[in-house]
Amino acid sequence: MGDWLTALDRRARLRAKAGLTRTLRPRAAEDRVIDLAGNDYLGLARHPEVTAAAAAALPGYGLGATGSRLVRGSTDLHAALEETLADWLGVRRALVYSSGYLANLGAIRGLVGPRTLLVSDAHNHASLIDGCRLSGAETVVTPHADVTAVRAALAAAPGRPAVVVTESVFSVDGDLAPLADLHAVAREHGALLLVDDAHALGVLGPTGAGGVAAAGLAGEPDVVVTATLSKALGGAGGLVAGPAELVRHLVETGRTFIFDTALPPAVAAGVLAAAGLARSGDRLRAELADRTAAVVRRFGAAGLGVSTPDAAVVSVTAPGPETALAWAADCLDRGVAVGCFRPPSTPDNRSRLRLTVNAGVPRADFDRALGTVLECAP
Amino acid sequence: MGDWLTALDRRARLRAKAGLTRTLRPRAAEDRVIDLAGNDYLGLARHPEVTAAAAAALPGYGLGATGSRLVRGSTDLHAALEETLADWLGVRRALVYSSGYLANLGAIRGLVGPRTLLVSDAHNHASLIDGCRLSGAETVVTPHADVTAVRAALAAAPGRPAVVVTESVFSVDGDLAPLADLHAVAREHGALLLVDDAHALGVLGPTGAGGVAAAGLAGEPDVVVTATLSKALGGAGGLVAGPAELVRHLVETGRTFIFDTALPPAVAAGVLAAAGLARSGDRLRAELADRTAAVVRRFGAAGLGVSTPDAAVVSVTAPGPETALAWAADCLDRGVAVGCFRPPSTPDNRSRLRLTVNAGVPRADFDRALGTVLECAP
Repeated sequence: MGDWLTALDRRARLRAKAGLTRTLRPRAAEDRVIDLAGNDYLGLARHPEVTAAAAAALPGYGLGATGSRLVRGSTDLHAALEETLADWLGVRRALVYSSGYLANLGAIRGLVGPRTLLVSDAHNHASLIDGCRLSGAETVVTPHADVTAVRAALAAAPGRPAVVVTESVFSVDGDLAPLADLHAVAREHGALLLVDDAHALGVLGPTGAGGVAAAGLAGEPDVVVTATLSKALGGAGGLVAGPAELVRHLVETGRTFIFDTALPPAVAAGVLAAAGLARSGDRLRAELADRTAAVVRRFGAAGLGVSTPDAAVVSVTAPGPETALAWAADCLDRGVAVGCFRPPSTPDNRSRLRLTVNAGVPRADFDRALGTVLECAP
Repeated sequence: MGDWLTALDRRARLRAKAGLTRTLRPRAAEDRVIDLAGNDYLGLARHPEVTAAAAAALPGYGLGATGSRLVRGSTDLHAALEETLADWLGVRRALVYSSGYLANLGAIRGLVGPRTLLVSDAHNHASLIDGCRLSGAETVVTPHADVTAVRAALAAAPGRPAVVVTESVFSVDGDLAPLADLHAVAREHGALLLVDDAHALGVLGPTGAGGVAAAGLAGEPDVVVTATLSKALGGAGGLVAGPAELVRHLVETGRTFIFDTALPPAVAAGVLAAAGLARSGDRLRAELADRTAAVVRRFGAAGLGVSTPDAAVVSVTAPGPETALAWAADCLDRGVAVGCFRPPSTPDNRSRLRLTVNAGVPRADFDRALGTVLECAP
């Protein structure tokens, strides 16, 4: 009976040998580290209006929602948040989940019928991949951002319902999917387009309404948007946004919606405040774009392989997983947190650092942090 | 392209005809409704120490965790919560997820290898069922609480790794799985036992350490415990608890752990306070048991079909889905929230009311609420 623990231990030692050990490094509240690793793009997680809104909700609503949305978990804060998000994104209705992961699992399953074909981008996030798997639908994985391959996959299944599944801004390299082209191809074949806008909500588009809005696709009846409330909105939770019929369908039949405790009301209150700030945050977005351009400029000038970011995520190539790990560790030792992405968290088996830009970090700290990352380069 | 919306609408109308419409009913902070529907068993969601702990963490840590646990999401609050939970449950290590749903998906996949057989109770929660599906492992569903069937399933797969998957207290009828017998059978066959202790943590066992502890199985090397932090602990999030090797495996390879934003630090702080109160909450648990007995006594005396609860969940049979819905709606109109479980949320296709006991509701309100539910009975 101890066999399984021995086996787990053996696998851990194999990972260690391959430089793939992962360690939790808890941070304190008074963290002096400059953050180039998180997804708090607009710096709203610590915005005093956001934390105050959450704190103000705690005494009246309590900490947890005490039940699923359909039982006791729905509050007027959830309803207000959903109305605000729907209005902002230009869709008929929005539905809040306790996490973006569960929103993606729920959205994909909600769109799948008996004969549905899923066409999924090769770089899609784990939650989209798991959503495809859990739906039980046949899934064709197409090469990254390859509209021709998507068209071919759809053309090969004439008459079948289909859903094209993509992120808008991809989480590792920060590149933007060809959303308008994907939509045109999907519509041509009567397919739906599901877009995970997690890294674009608050960052791209008019009033920060996201990558779908930026592509002019907001409110299209054959487009479904998912997102997290934990990145530019600085909180936690997930979102599915689209036609009213879809949201009704998810409320009445979606397992990851029905059988899950609701997002804490105080978190909904904080995210509601953050959504207001993000929507009117054009200055924050201008600062974000300027800083992102600075990353590309400085790292490119230093001769490093740097991605061409469409939002606030930049990846920098590392020679291998162990070098990437050592590079990130050196940065952290010198007070700068950067993301370190190694297999299996990278779509192409290559390791890199991922720098995420946070407009809330003081500019001088940000500029100094970039210098530190450059100095630590292998 | 509007076809899919028409199809969704048609399905919604079929559900409406069958009495299976579900509607979100947002509540306000100043909710006068007496709660016999949520899972806040010990009344800790609104406990001033719990909400104060969460509020105190907000300014320093911000609202959201700003990243996954391995990137920027881990704080000393998460670490302290995990140490406290491991110590309380009598296991080597505990790992906190952003939801119980994701904890179950992660735990099952983490236990599955190439030839693993899963043996899953027919009444298991949706998250366990989805965990089995997502793992890709062969799954045998055994009749509810049927140890003989579990033994037969294991005996039919000699030499294969296997995991017996069960809840401790089942969420609809509130009955307790035969954990000691299941463990004996599992061990006899070299199989693991995975127990979802969501409805028992804080409620059963010495110091409320849960159903696994109550069965004398705490810390056994072939037992893995999952739970939510959103029920008796009054917060949000999920938990996997067991051997250190398993937790390391989940941290390094678990998709629903790695690719998900961490639980908000302030929620971790609130749950940490709640765990302390729950652990020393023998008086709350005595009150809970007394109230649960009162439900059974009064509903039985009224000639209603009532389950024999082992924890704080009681189900009352309703003639059909529409009657159940009308009964619950009448109760709500008169100020009492009760759960209304209809297919597909019930394991046996029968509809019922579910009453969950909350030791935090004033006793006079609780007794009055039971009278209201009885008066509204069809």
